[in-house]
Amino acid sequence: MNSFLASKPEGRIVLFGAPFDSTSSYRPGSRFGPQAIREASHSLETFSPEQLLDLEECPFTDDHDLELPFGDPCPALDLIEQKAARVISHGGVPFLLGGEHLVSLGAIRAASSMYPNLRVVHLDAHADLRDEYLGMRLSHATVMRRVLDLVGQDRLHQIGIRSCTREEHELSSRLSTTPEKVSLLAGENPCYLTCDIDILDPSVLPGTGTPDPGGLSFRELSNLLVSMITRLRVVGMDIVELSPGLDPSGVSAVVAAKLVRESLLALHRAPACG
Amino acid sequence: MNSFLASKPEGRIVLFGAPFDSTSSYRPGSRFGPQAIREASHSLETFSPEQLLDLEECPFTDDHDLELPFGDPCPALDLIEQKAARVISHGGVPFLLGGEHLVSLGAIRAASSMYPNLRVVHLDAHADLRDEYLGMRLSHATVMRRVLDLVGQDRLHQIGIRSCTREEHELSSRLSTTPEKVSLLAGENPCYLTCDIDILDPSVLPGTGTPDPGGLSFRELSNLLVSMITRLRVVGMDIVELSPGLDPSGVSAVVAAKLVRESLLALHRAPACG
Amino acid sequence: MNSFLASKPEGRIVLFGAPFDSTSSYRPGSRFGPQAIREASHSLETFSPEQLLDLEECPFTDDHDLELPFGDPCPALDLIEQKAARVISHGGVPFLLGGEHLVSLGAIRAASSMYPNLRVVHLDAHADLRDEYLGMRLSHATVMRRVLDLVGQDRLHQIGIRSCTREEHELSSRLSTTPEKVSLLAGENPCYLTCDIDILDPSVLPGTGTPDPGGLSFRELSNLLVSMITRLRVVGMDIVELSPGLDPSGVSAVVAAKLVRESLLALHRAPACG
Amino acid sequence: MNSFLASKPEGRIVLFGAPFDSTSSYRPGSRFGPQAIREASHSLETFSPEQLLDLEECPFTDDHDLELPFGDPCPALDLIEQKAARVISHGGVPFLLGGEHLVSLGAIRAASSMYPNLRVVHLDAHADLRDEYLGMRLSHATVMRRVLDLVGQDRLHQIGIRSCTREEHELSSRLSTTPEKVSLLAGENPCYLTCDIDILDPSVLPGTGTPDPGGLSFRELSNLLVSMITRLRVVGMDIVELSPGLDPSGVSAVVAAKLVRESLLALHRAPACG
Amino acid sequence: MNSFLASKPEGRIVLFGAPFDSTSSYRPGSRFGPQAIREASHSLETFSPEQLLDLEECPFTDDHDLELPFGDPCPALDLIEQKAARVISHGGVPFLLGGEHLVSLGAIRAASSMYPNLRVVHLDAHADLRDEYLGMRLSHATVMRRVLDLVGQDRLHQIGIRSCTREEHELSSRLSTTPEKVSLLAGENPCYLTCDIDILDPSVLPGTGTPDPGGLSFRELSNLLVSMITRLRVVGMDIVELSPGLDPSGVSAVVAAKLVRESLLALHRAPACG
Amino acid sequence: MNSFLASKPEGRIVLFGAPFDSTSSYRPGSRFGPQAIREASHSLETFSPEQLLDLEECPFTDDHDLELPFGDPCPALDLIEQKAARVISHGGVPFLLGGEHLVSLGAIRAASSMYPNLRVVHLDAHADLRDEYLGMRLSHATVMRRVLDLVGQDRLHQIGIRSCTREEHELSSRLSTTPEKVSLLAGENPCYLTCDIDILDPSVLPGTGTPDPGGLSFRELSNLLVSMITRLRVVGMDIVELSPGLDPSGVSAVVAAKLVRESLLALHRAPACG
Repeated sequence: MNSFLASKPEGRIVLFGAPFDSTSSYRPGSRFGPQAIREASHSLETFSPEQLLDLEECPFTDDHDLELPFGDPCPALDLIEQKAARVISHGGVPFLLGGEHLVSLGAIRAASSMYPNLRVVHLDAHADLRDEYLGMRLSHATVMRRVLDLVGQDRLHQIGIRSCTREEHELSSRLSTTPEKVSLLAGENPCYLTCDIDILDPSVLPGTGTPDPGGLSFRELSNLLVSMITRLRVVGMDIVELSPGLDPSGVSAVVAAKLVRESLLALHRAPACG
Repeated sequence: MNSFLASKPEGRIVLFGAPFDSTSSYRPGSRFGPQAIREASHSLETFSPEQLLDLEECPFTDDHDLELPFGDPCPALDLIEQKAARVISHGGVPFLLGGEHLVSLGAIRAASSMYPNLRVVHLDAHADLRDEYLGMRLSHATVMRRVLDLVGQDRLHQIGIRSCTREEHELSSRLSTTPEKVSLLAGENPCYLTCDIDILDPSVLPGTGTPDPGGLSFRELSNLLVSMITRLRVVGMDIVELSPGLDPSGVSAVVAAKLVRESLLALHRAPACG
Repeated sequence: MNSFLASKPEGRIVLFGAPFDSTSSYRPGSRFGPQAIREASHSLETFSPEQLLDLEECPFTDDHDLELPFGDPCPALDLIEQKAARVISHGGVPFLLGGEHLVSLGAIRAASSMYPNLRVVHLDAHADLRDEYLGMRLSHATVMRRVLDLVGQDRLHQIGIRSCTREEHELSSRLSTTPEKVSLLAGENPCYLTCDIDILDPSVLPGTGTPDPGGLSFRELSNLLVSMITRLRVVGMDIVELSPGLDPSGVSAVVAAKLVRESLLALHRAPACG
Repeated sequence: MNSFLASKPEGRIVLFGAPFDSTSSYRPGSRFGPQAIREASHSLETFSPEQLLDLEECPFTDDHDLELPFGDPCPALDLIEQKAARVISHGGVPFLLGGEHLVSLGAIRAASSMYPNLRVVHLDAHADLRDEYLGMRLSHATVMRRVLDLVGQDRLHQIGIRSCTREEHELSSRLSTTPEKVSLLAGENPCYLTCDIDILDPSVLPGTGTPDPGGLSFRELSNLLVSMITRLRVVGMDIVELSPGLDPSGVSAVVAAKLVRESLLALHRAPACG
Repeated sequence: MNSFLASKPEGRIVLFGAPFDSTSSYRPGSRFGPQAIREASHSLETFSPEQLLDLEECPFTDDHDLELPFGDPCPALDLIEQKAARVISHGGVPFLLGGEHLVSLGAIRAASSMYPNLRVVHLDAHADLRDEYLGMRLSHATVMRRVLDLVGQDRLHQIGIRSCTREEHELSSRLSTTPEKVSLLAGENPCYLTCDIDILDPSVLPGTGTPDPGGLSFRELSNLLVSMITRLRVVGMDIVELSPGLDPSGVSAVVAAKLVRESLLALHRAPACG
Repeated sequence: MNSFLASKPEGRIVLFGAPFDSTSSYRPGSRFGPQAIREASHSLETFSPEQLLDLEECPFTDDHDLELPFGDPCPALDLIEQKAARVISHGGVPFLLGGEHLVSLGAIRAASSMYPNLRVVHLDAHADLRDEYLGMRLSHATVMRRVLDLVGQDRLHQIGIRSCTREEHELSSRLSTTPEKVSLLAGENPCYLTCDIDILDPSVLPGTGTPDPGGLSFRELSNLLVSMITRLRVVGMDIVELSPGLDPSGVSAVVAAKLVRESLLALHRAPACG
């Protein structure tokens, strides 16, 4: 099988990798995520029996990985923002592959500039709402707090959180919602969907930096993504925090690749993106 | 604990390994499956609290591994067919341990010669119904198409398929069925049961060449096998595609070994084989 | 994040490790369990969104690992018994981290001396009720038989057993019970809770010496532990048989660490221990 | 660093991968060799302080991997032969990355057609001179016997052999030679250089299917290759049998990549290829 | 290739495994050594180009592994001693595969009873001369002290020691010798040769419990063993401390298997054993 | 064995870890180096038969790991500089355990402030002399260029470099020297010794981010370090770039730990530090 991520240059959906993991505090390695997803895609079919659609029939572009400097996150975030802004300004939908969760901030900044009433839907095991972490305001553990600064509490919705500090919990419980409520609230408003793959149970996806037991099954997340994408007006999305080297069986990368496939097909079905 | 696969020479059920994986396109290694199952069986009891039966009381024979040449699959398939035919002609039930899925074709050829009205029940994540794959007509990805050529559409039943091409899907959706329907249709007719172990979710069994997320739990497959075996007239069966080296934890081999134990005990309970 | 096991010297609950695995027959390595739990705890928060409690507010002490000789288990069991007896005689609750399951015998001996009407609640995949194993009466495979000798059949309760010999099955089926029944029977009597972590399904916890497929999910075990601890009068407990080296993804240690966190918080909520 | 294998379209030297390993009898996986070499090349510089040359200044082409069917080696060998013949007929020098050693036969057939007086220089731990292996005449264990059939005893030279059967030893000891003698004998005649990377000691390169202790150090092999390439008229060459998955440290692929770099630079220095 | 350890029942040399590792203090796992050596032997030829001899022509017996209890070393040592005594009393030469180094004590006790003037030649990285270790007198770290108690300082010779305490160093420096001196001193006296495989550099053999950098190369140890065996009157020997699970590349087991092959062939060449 | 790094509070030599690896471009993970060295030290003796000295008799302090933020290297370097300056101003010798090589810059800045005529001796496989890398001036690949900016060409000496760009090579060949010359040039001047452990051959130390084949053996590096330390006036030193997770055998950490032991003992023998 060929990689189903082979470029389809005519697509409005534009995949790109953001291989950055310098603020990961526990176990780095998500920089290898985008490449691992591409490789694992060779073992999957392009056709989805769930959605009865084939990627061969769904135009999208894979712009490969951004070249990002390691260390200080500021220049990396700027490069991600510029890339996402370029995609959006050409009428496209950026689909970012992480990298650590902080990379989402670059794409959300771009989407938020373009769509002032942007809503952000956040699927994750961790609240990521600390104001500072190890003295840093830009970190995988603070990323959604920075998004909150950007869009405000009414426009940030969290689903699946099962790990937080007591301080984060107070805030997170206010942001917490269900897929049904999100789709009611969002209506026709533009949404950015950010999915930290550690929302999955570690038995399903051991290859992530800070696994937290007690998460979703593959089918639960796959159905959640497809249902959100087809019901919301998604103007940008990402799947982040795959750290393939932590899972020597290679299964984690296949799990991420299948989620990317199902998401691409669902984006195609959604009227705004196809 | 000793291996529960220690030979019981008087048994009608004859286990043997077919350590062949030369057509595996993504990640080879299923050649090490049979040996890994034997080793993992040391860590399991011979008694099943589910079936209240002990392998010590259930005669069967382990004829160890066939010596198969690598590369061209034709001579390997011939050797497998000859072995299975010998077992059947002595009134036995061949129980094949793979190896890649293509090895099943050898045993099914033998069973189909002996039992002209043979039905084949196929448990798998993948349809394996391509007519050709990478230019080859004999491949792990075409094996069930070759079985279809042999027994016809009315006698091939598929359960659990979650991965296929669009072309395969049309065919596969006609072959797709449920355990209940199979047992109604098959009645007293002889059945060959072929189980590609990647029907399990990769969280349960990461050690397989082409894992596809979203599969069965251990209990679902274990119950499915036991219920099929005790309700059908099984004249041959196999469990294939364990690739133990891909799972450094060793759990995948234990999963396969427990499925072999439960299947052996279920075959013993079935009137035809005990 | 700092380890949530940093010492809180004022606590009535006293954690300590028993890094002993010399009678492990299949795959040793549980000696590294306690240290791996401490390290994995760095990646978890101290706050539990399930129990709405934070370890920072729950006093307990971590007395680190006992220094135990390898080989003959008698001196190791004596050292464990002395340590547990010291904790109990100072009004504390020993919380032992294994190590192989045999280490529980030391702590149960101590608890049984102090509390003559002690009940033992045993969560495990394996019955561990052999009278002898490979010629040894003190072994991970005989440990609950030795506990039975100590407390008698009426005071030993087993939950979750899915692997045993036919002989063990007769005995185990009489000891088998449900969480509800245990809490009815035990009432205000002192209980020792021993949890062999292989009660979990191997997909959730591959890092254990004798994994047996078909076990509990993380949530099932976490809820079971919390519900037992908050409903019984727990005077001692242990979590044993994590063998971290068998799981290169590191997830197994995180699973164990989260169970330790939830158990510590639940012990704090139970009136007797807080 | 970018991969130093980025294509230089103007080069006379044409790299290509032959990802085939279907006849591997012990541990397959060399199909992943070419891709692993490309990835590992990112961690190396393009400049060689030994040869004071930079790949940036040395034109060559990387034609990526051939798409080869698995199983029967005949069609794969045909495709390799056609590719090598095409390169040679355009005045180029094919540089093959294996794959198992059998793939060399395809390239040597092409070179032997084009250059009737071709000499073959064989660096390896194993003699590979069996006439048949597991009933097969085309196998990694028979490949040099097939080359012998093609070029005759006077034109096949072996260096470094440390493993063989008694039968092979008689033949191999006649073919055995030293670098100095080879360069005297070969003179201006065209030579094909085939290097099975297991000539290295397994401490240097654990990632190969049949490691044999007691081999060369990295410097010994690197110097040997450079000295042979710069002294002979090399019209084709290969480096085969890297099996990267067997070495989780990733070092084996880096070793192979550095040997490819040094060989490319040496080929450039040799007047015939530069 | 078949395992070269397939039984040759007529042989005077009797191989057997002692899969015991319960006193290992750092990293257990040498219990899997003997089985790993048998499996790795499949990848090696039976012929040695160094000694120009083939195992096919050298009678020996492989009596497989003793079944040893884990935990207390006393019963295990008794079983090993009985086995070695039986071999010697039938005119044979026991060749023990460990297991941790303590297992040698069983065989040396047997040899010392039979041959009162026995000399012991000890190849190792570690002196193993502690009188007690973690409170135990029977341990991998005290084994040569127990041998010293048995045979006296004049009859114990150490080669290769590079790790010891200051106390051990005083004793060890008196026992330290060279191969040449040993063969002069020993003359026609019976010798037991015990080889802890960690005398090799960890780059050559990472799969051992307490690796110590700075050791021998494969060729150095192989030559040392062959030269000692062919010059001394070896009445028993062992190779111990391979811990195969610590080396995921599998190379360590191949290294040990090749040393066993060379040792068997050298024993055959020695007049007393052939 | 206890860790030989247990604190000796009275020592002038002060060990501390700098677990930072955010600018690592190829494979991060050196943040886990200091902790892995401490753990591996449990398997080594405190006595060195080479130097006939025991760490028990050599006072030093282990101040454990600095808590460093990930991402932007500036604050991390500041914290390292402050720590090293504190040690030096109390008359101590800082001994830094990395972490990526960039961490050395913090310590060298401190030493250079205190000792204006400081010389830096640099042992490494890589020149690390780029002026910029991926747009960054502070990176593991530019660290020695920043040191050069600080101390000037006459005071920076490189040993062992085998990998560089053509630009670096011009500069590096001027800085390149031998141990003998360094000790002549340096005389009584204060020296800082920085050792990137990838100067070792990858067979000896696979656990490092950018292994480069063809390096030193363990004995060569151990002798080099001891001879430099005992001949120079070392006022600060470091050993960096161990990335333990890349070597699943654990040997790399043991290699680093033994080098730390030998260095500590050598520092003790040097008159200035003992």
